[in-house]
Formats: sequence, structure tokens, C-alpha cells
Amino acid sequence: MRKPDRTSKKPLYQQISDEMERSIIHGEYPPGSFLPSERKLAERLEVNRSTVVQAYEELRARGIVESISGSGTMVSNHIWGIRPNLTPNWRQYVEGGTFAPNLPYLRRVREVLRERESIIDFASGELSADLFPNEAIKQIMRDIPFEAYLGYDDPSGYLPLRETLVGFLEERLRIRATEASILITSGSQQSLYLIMQCLLAPGDAVAIEDPSYYYSLSMFQSAGLRIFRLPVKENGIDPEDIMTLYRQHRIRMIFLNPNYQNPTGTFLHASKREALLKIAAELGIPIVEDDPFSLTSFDHSPPDTLKSIDTHGSVLYVGSLSKIAASGLRIGWLVAPQAVVQRLADARQQMDFGLSIVPQWLANKFLGSELFDQHSHFLRDSLSLKQHLMIRSLQQELPDQLSFTPVRGGLNIWCKIKDKLDDQKLLEEAIKRGVVFMPGTVFGSEPGHLRLSFARPSTDEIAPGISKLAQAFHALTQKC
Amino acid sequence: MRKPDRTSKKPLYQQISDEMERSIIHGEYPPGSFLPSERKLAERLEVNRSTVVQAYEELRARGIVESISGSGTMVSNHIWGIRPNLTPNWRQYVEGGTFAPNLPYLRRVREVLRERESIIDFASGELSADLFPNEAIKQIMRDIPFEAYLGYDDPSGYLPLRETLVGFLEERLRIRATEASILITSGSQQSLYLIMQCLLAPGDAVAIEDPSYYYSLSMFQSAGLRIFRLPVKENGIDPEDIMTLYRQHRIRMIFLNPNYQNPTGTFLHASKREALLKIAAELGIPIVEDDPFSLTSFDHSPPDTLKSIDTHGSVLYVGSLSKIAASGLRIGWLVAPQAVVQRLADARQQMDFGLSIVPQWLANKFLGSELFDQHSHFLRDSLSLKQHLMIRSLQQELPDQLSFTPVRGGLNIWCKIKDKLDDQKLLEEAIKRGVVFMPGTVFGSEPGHLRLSFARPSTDEIAPGISKLAQAFHALTQKC
Repeated sequence: MRKPDRTSKKPLYQQISDEMERSIIHGEYPPGSFLPSERKLAERLEVNRSTVVQAYEELRARGIVESISGSGTMVSNHIWGIRPNLTPNWRQYVEGGTFAPNLPYLRRVREVLRERESIIDFASGELSADLFPNEAIKQIMRDIPFEAYLGYDDPSGYLPLRETLVGFLEERLRIRATEASILITSGSQQSLYLIMQCLLAPGDAVAIEDPSYYYSLSMFQSAGLRIFRLPVKENGIDPEDIMTLYRQHRIRMIFLNPNYQNPTGTFLHASKREALLKIAAELGIPIVEDDPFSLTSFDHSPPDTLKSIDTHGSVLYVGSLSKIAASGLRIGWLVAPQAVVQRLADARQQMDFGLSIVPQWLANKFLGSELFDQHSHFLRDSLSLKQHLMIRSLQQELPDQLSFTPVRGGLNIWCKIKDKLDDQKLLEEAIKRGVVFMPGTVFGSEPGHLRLSFARPSTDEIAPGISKLAQAFHALTQKC
Repeated sequence: MRKPDRTSKKPLYQQISDEMERSIIHGEYPPGSFLPSERKLAERLEVNRSTVVQAYEELRARGIVESISGSGTMVSNHIWGIRPNLTPNWRQYVEGGTFAPNLPYLRRVREVLRERESIIDFASGELSADLFPNEAIKQIMRDIPFEAYLGYDDPSGYLPLRETLVGFLEERLRIRATEASILITSGSQQSLYLIMQCLLAPGDAVAIEDPSYYYSLSMFQSAGLRIFRLPVKENGIDPEDIMTLYRQHRIRMIFLNPNYQNPTGTFLHASKREALLKIAAELGIPIVEDDPFSLTSFDHSPPDTLKSIDTHGSVLYVGSLSKIAASGLRIGWLVAPQAVVQRLADARQQMDFGLSIVPQWLANKFLGSELFDQHSHFLRDSLSLKQHLMIRSLQQELPDQLSFTPVRGGLNIWCKIKDKLDDQKLLEEAIKRGVVFMPGTVFGSEPGHLRLSFARPSTDEIAPGISKLAQAFHALTQKC
């Protein structure tokens, strides 16, 4: 909303109420929705709260809004009634589309994170701001003249970046690719979206790990896919389970995160990998290898990927900069047969006409320079330290409540709650005390687990955060 | 494909044939597809052509490829036969998905443009490289320290950019919006994609202009929408036609490009706009106003938009930087009711997790500074000059063959062919002579029209290009 014009003859409160009425009539605040609190709006518009109070009174007088005691100022439900045929029924349109909304449980956590900046965040599987290569990026933009072509780019991505990735993937992950077998995407998310939309059809059966990050992806639901689970054991999934699922459901694709699996942190045992690839090849089923974490390996020697030992060409490899540099760059890559890359690139032209050249140019300079290795080294040591701090606190504060296995890479620790505890209640108790985590059920696991991300909080938030979590535990156990 | 290692003991030709065999087995060159020409590959790998010839002979010897006289080296069709159950049948997967491929006719033109860089391009409705704000962008990146947060961004886009757009849209186009009613997208393409995917359901009927840029958008087809036409007259569409279509087909949305319509360049007459909005409001049908060109107005005073006079809130306004700055930035905006913005932003999280922060930061600095106005002024004068040059050549070279109306904005002239001529044949004749244009049928118009873009070619290509076009005309008329 625009700040009122102090030079205008019209009183401030009236400017505000008029502007607000316009927004409401235009459906920006749908009937039943709440206007910003008087305090918040006053801050935003830089006026006295009393001015906003007056403006809202004006709107109440016009019968456009109502005060709901305790909850604030709500847009009257009969607004759309007033002009039944003068505005499209946006609510109907909005509820029409084919996209499944995100999990309410997930939304609850996101909500809390949006509203309470002070809260200690063990929920988001993301890097903290100080782990982003801020300086490197500033430096590249300042020192290297931007010279990329500003017209429409190659549908499969900025060629120099793809060429750099050929060397990058071979050198660091022993993955062999060609410029033609790489598609640059807006992070892993877009790689997965394109695969589901273009290579699978509604009704197709796919296999995912259980528990799995994918469980929370309404993407599968939006694509109309039938999901079947591959239980994740100590050493990852059992290849034989794929055979079983295939016999029962004719699964058409397998989605795996073999290295430092999200959320469990498990590493798919080497002995299982050959078998897995053999089975996939015999069944002719592609494996989508989602690999966000390999380059975070704390011991500085990234593990093998499935793609690097895939002799049959069954693996679609999905990587990105999100967890090894910065998610906001939205740079990811898919390594796939050329026919697949071309199909997906062609389909993406219909969705967004390809990626912006600017972050691709930036990523190319970053990955092609020493800046990446410097950053990478710092990142791995920081993550390793953060896990160390979290483990120490967990051992001190919750030795009898939680069991877990330390990870050698990734951003998360997967914890099992020893006693029977309602993890939903636990979450609410934790939120009350200023800390938030991801309940295991968000990943489709049975109740009694939680995922703690050590990457997101700052080093000095970790100990206090775990204490708050401990208090939440105690509060609950006392109640029981 | 990677350059061979000259330090290796393995002979170059063998390195190349091995690498190529690997690519073929991994499906990067599917059976029946052609390998790069020996000359091209030699250039790319920086080896003698004879080395590539030797490598291809090796592959022939192994029975992996065949020479097709005249057309080159083809991957043998029985390759997949060899390992029927050892590689996923990528072809099947690729042909499976739900996305409709782009128009073959359009592809033909794109193909020609990819293959023949020297060709004079009147086909692409894009700016020439010299019209992009290259210097401004270099300057911003060099001089302004990048300070935006590198984590996941607000789903509806970088807040500072949305705030800048509130002022930008009001000042330049008299469009009133709030940060909350703006969604930043990857160009108009993504705005349209999100609208179709999230606000409409398969089977829904929509109305588009005839002829129309939309006709060539397989997007509609991919979304399963039924398309009905609104004929574009001298002063744009007739609002009454909407009433008729609604009665017959219960259309749920209207897609319009009222200012300098693509391809006809028509301007929807002011007298028709009120009527249009009234009808849409009465029927409760949203109008999607696609407005790529308003800010190119040659007389430096952008015309009114539908959105600016929309008192009912029926208009979803779609704009972007693609035609007024640079398409490669992939920055666009949708102005819509907050409920719609939220729904679309939420759905996009599933597709690409939002836009990269870098181009959004850049666009904000650009739109918020004088750099944009300087660029904008230069752009409009250049476009106006380019149209002038094209019109002069057309009058000199094809006075009796083509009729057209000059435009006051946009990038294209819409020409009617006076005599009956097969425009497909004309296109091929033109391509032979080194010039390419868009046949009207690509936009769904009846045969006998062509769209000439004056924005794409350089000023000194325009006259020669039109002469080549004239030669194509003469060649054809002589034949008849």
C-alpha cells in the first residue's frame, strides 16, 4: 500500500481508507481476510496509529470491514455479495487450478518462521546467511565485466556454464557429461518438476525413499503420480524392494538421494549401488539421483555418486548450488541423455522461456574460479563445526530423550524420540519457547522422529536452541 | 563433447571414438539421430578433420553408426536393439509427457535462424543486441555493491523490486498497484503459464485475438484449454464478440494485447475499452492484459492500459522487460488481486522455487535509476527509425505486392500480400535468398499475410533484407 500524500488537502486517514477500499474492491483483500493490524499499517505508512484507527473506523462506517474482537479488522463477507457480477469470483478461480497446495503442517512451520524472526530455526534445511559466498559474488560482479548476450539464451542453458560444469562434475564427482547432456535449471526443484511433467504421465507409479524429502513435495500430487515407498535402513534402501514394487505396481521411475539422504543423513552403502543399478537397468527404469549434498562432505572428499558408476545410462543426475553455495541464485543442473535434455528444454520454453542469463553468467565465473574452492573449504569446515556443537548440546541436554547418528555431510541430524511423545505437541511446546524443528511426519516417517538442521542457525544459537528444545521435552513429559 | 587429451598415450581418433561411443550408449545420440558433421566436430575439438574421419570410421567398424550418403553419419537404429533391457527406453519417456511440442512451422523458422547466422532476421519479434541496455547493466554490476540476501526469497518476488514497480507502473502507465498485488515472474511467459495452470482447468474455454501471438503458444494446448477467436479489426476486437462467445461456450478468460497488438500492431480503440471492461465485469470474466509494448511508444507518451481504467478489478496485467530492455534478464510482472498473487506464488514454489535474486536486484537498480529513462529514450527513437527504414524500403521495393499500416509502437509491421501467393513457398524462396520472416498463419490468420519485425535486424540490414524479400516475390510471381 502506498504512503499517503502529506501535501494533499485530503486528510491522511481518508486517503488511507480510500486506498484501502480500492484494494478491497480489487480483491487484494478478499472477503473474510484480515487487514494489517493498525500498528503494523501505521509503521508501514509512517503515520500515527490513531490515523489508521480513524481510517479503519471510516471503512467500518461504510460497511466494508468488521472488527472481530481479539483477531482484528476483517473484510466483510458480503462484499462480493454487494457486486456479485462486477468482479470475477477470484476465490473460485484461485481454487480452480490443478496445483495441489503445500502440506498444511509444512505451512505451519513456514508461517512461524515468517512471523517470528527471533525464533531459533532448526527446521529449515538451508545454509545460514554467513555461509553464502557473499564476498565472492560481490567481487565477481565488481571486477569481471558482464559480457554475456542479453537476448534469449540457448534453451538448455548458458553454454559457457555448461562447458564449465563438464569439467567441474568430472573433476569433483567423477561424473562424465557433455555440454549437450547438461540442462541448467532453476535449482533441483525445476529439474524434478520438468522430469515429472515431461517424462511421466498422470497415473504413473514412482518409488521414493521412506522417509523422504519428496514426501513433502506436493509436486508429485500435482503431477498425478502414484507414490510407493522404499524404506530407508541404516545403509539406505534395499534394491530388492524395487523389484517387488515393480512387480506389484509397474513403477516407472525411482527417486533417490543416495548421499547423506534427506532427512535421515544415511549413505547408500557401496555394495548396494551395483545391485541397484543392475536392477534398474534390467527393468529399464530410470533412477533420478538427487544429489544436493555430496560436495558438503565434511572430510573434503566427496563420495561416489550413482551417476559416476552408471554404465547403462539409467541415471538422471540432479545437482544444484542451493546447499553448497546459495539457494537464492537458483542455479541447478540435470545430467541426462541428450534426447531428454532437449525435450525438457523445449517444454521449459513454454513455462518460463529459460533462465535469466545473469545468475548463469555469475555461476560460471564462480565455479570456474578458485573462489568456489575457497568457499567450499570454508563451508565444509563450518558445517562440520556446527554439527559438532549440536551433538555436544544434544548429549548434554537430551541424552535420554533422543538417539541419533552423526552425519558426514549434509545439513541435518535425524533424531529418534526414545519415549512415546506426540511430536505435534512437542513442536508447539518448542515454538512457545522460541525454537522450531521439522517433525519427522513431514517426511512421511512414523511419528517419534524429528529433523534438526544444524546449518541454518548461527553457531551461537545452537546451544541455546537445544536447551529450549530440552525445556519443551521436559514440559511435555511432566504433563504426561 | 570434451576435447581429447593430447598428453594421453591413446591416439586422438580413438579417444574421440570411445567418447562418442559412450555418448551413444548413454542415449545422448539416440538411434537414427545424426552425429555432428566431421568438419563441425573437428572445429569443436580442435583436431584435424582427418582425425574425426578416422574416429567415425572406427565407430562404423564397431557397427554403431552408418554413413547415409549425402546426409552424414547416423547412429544405427539397432543400437537400442542391442541392449533392449539395459537402458531405459528414453524415446518412450520423452514422448510420454503431457507437454505439447511447439508448432512445426515455428520450429522451421527457429531452425533456420539457429543454423544460418548470416541470415537477415525479420522473423524474431525481438530487439537487436545493440538495443539492449548492455552498458547500463555493466555499470550497475560494477558500481553498486550487491547486497541482496542470497537465501530463498519471498515467493512473490524481491520486495524492493515490487516496491519500485509500484511507483514505476503508476508513473509511466497510470497503473495503481501495491507490493502485495505484484508477482515477479520469469517474463510474461511465466505469468501466462501460471495463470493457465493455476486459474484454469483442462477443458475450460478461453478467448484470444485472431490473429494472435497466442495462437503459436502450445501452452494453451498443454493446459488443455479450448481456444475461441476474437477477430481483430482495424480498431481491435469487438467487445460484442465476447458476449457471443460467452453465450456459446461459457468462456472463462479473455487474453488480449490491446496496445500495438502482436502481430497486427493494432491499437484497441478507446471507445471500445469501456464497453469491453463493462461486459467482462458483467460476465465476471477476467481479462488477461498482455502488455509487452506500451513503453516502446515512439512518441514517448505511452497509451492508456486497460488496467489503468479498470474500476472493477477484472484485469490481470502482464508486463515484462523483454521488449523494452532485454529478454535475457527474464524479468516480468503480473499485477493481480492479492489472492491470485498468493496462489500463483505458492504454485510456482513447486515449479522452480522462485526467481533468482540476482536479476531481480539488477532490475530494481535499473528501473529505479535514471539509466532506465536514458535507455528507454534511445530505444524508442531507434525503433521509430528502424520502422521508417523498413517502410521506405517496402515502398520502394514492393509497392504493388504488400499493403500495411505503420505502427506507433511495438516491434512489427503486419503486411497483407495483395496477390494470391502461397506464403509457405514465399518463405522458402526468402530463406534461399538469405532473409526470413514470420508467415501470418503462424498467428492463426488466413493465408496471405506476413509479419516483418524491424527491431531485430541492424539498421543497415533492413534495406538489403527487403530487397532479398522482393527477389523472393519476383521469383514466385514469375513461376506462377
